[in-house]
Amino acid sequence: MRIHRLAERARTARDDLDDILDAGWVGTLSVSVDGLPQVVPVLYGRVGDAVIVHGSTGAGTLRAAAAGSPVAFCVAHLDGFVYAASLFESSANYRSAVVHGVCERLADNEAEAALAGLSEHVMPGRAAEVRANTAKERAATIVLRLPIVDGQWLAKARTGPASVLEDDDPSVWTGVLPVRTVLGTPAPTAEAAARGIRLPASIEQRLATGR
Amino acid sequence: MRIHRLAERARTARDDLDDILDAGWVGTLSVSVDGLPQVVPVLYGRVGDAVIVHGSTGAGTLRAAAAGSPVAFCVAHLDGFVYAASLFESSANYRSAVVHGVCERLADNEAEAALAGLSEHVMPGRAAEVRANTAKERAATIVLRLPIVDGQWLAKARTGPASVLEDDDPSVWTGVLPVRTVLGTPAPTAEAAARGIRLPASIEQRLATGR
Repeated sequence: MRIHRLAERARTARDDLDDILDAGWVGTLSVSVDGLPQVVPVLYGRVGDAVIVHGSTGAGTLRAAAAGSPVAFCVAHLDGFVYAASLFESSANYRSAVVHGVCERLADNEAEAALAGLSEHVMPGRAAEVRANTAKERAATIVLRLPIVDGQWLAKARTGPASVLEDDDPSVWTGVLPVRTVLGTPAPTAEAAARGIRLPASIEQRLATGR
Repeated sequence: MRIHRLAERARTARDDLDDILDAGWVGTLSVSVDGLPQVVPVLYGRVGDAVIVHGSTGAGTLRAAAAGSPVAFCVAHLDGFVYAASLFESSANYRSAVVHGVCERLADNEAEAALAGLSEHVMPGRAAEVRANTAKERAATIVLRLPIVDGQWLAKARTGPASVLEDDDPSVWTGVLPVRTVLGTPAPTAEAAARGIRLPASIEQRLATGR
């Protein structure tokens, strides 16, 4: 008999948190407004000891976060469906993290550096291939910095095989069906295709690493 | 010149919301507790006009939701990285939905039906291959039903190619790098492998559809 309850456990090492944050690009940012929860999905990137998020002031949730309203930021990765011999014992393999705190709205050099870090996470290597953002563009971008503070974050994960219990029907298949996020075939714009522009190095690198 | 600001827009048709909800298995559930946001990632399934979520009463956020605290439930799918000729014009293709409301904690037949619907979404076809849950197991499972109510949900998506502007550097590649979620090769438990148990029909079907 093999039970995997310990397969699901809190991750308390900062390295584990960093790995979970670095493994994805989309999270959800939640705030409380007038006692009610509001949430918005965001592109993000971990830059050192902070989560960097950017967006438009149009979104109420981001406006509240930019104004210093406490936030809860969540990232979750589904890694597999865990098939046990009953639905009750079945579950999912996953990695998740929640970071609590208050965002700082960045400006000028700090905003530029943070945005560079975020851009490098979401589009690695791309900054070197394109023009710099103009001052007007920088002014139009809201950049938020959510610090990662000891005691203000949680990480949890389940890994490993399915639980197998003594009285399981031995004829039932048990195991894990993995789930992965993959990159597809790059699709050029009509303009780039018409000009025969070659795939950029940054994308070739992403395809090579799968990230 | 081709600008795709309209590529990012609200989806107002209920069918669009359903498609977005049906396309994934993991969402985030946010509540406000003492004026502060709390969030937890959850496995979910849309069953008719509701989102069904289940979990353990150990999680504070789920306890609050089960007690009737208003929730904001979010699902987001990253579909691609949109490479424009500048970082400012670059973005992501995605589909997202937020459902607001109050959860109902289900019991007995309603809970069983909802859980069956959720299970069918997360592990299609599996219920027919395994034993039924026992009464004790059912009692240990908390099942929440979040109704999908007109006016209490939002859906938004960006699709399509990158924006191309008149003064773009024409030598820079523009286009979309797609992102997909895929199923991997099923990994049997040591026990199932040792017994030579064949892959179940439900998994073969999932692999065939990619879902």
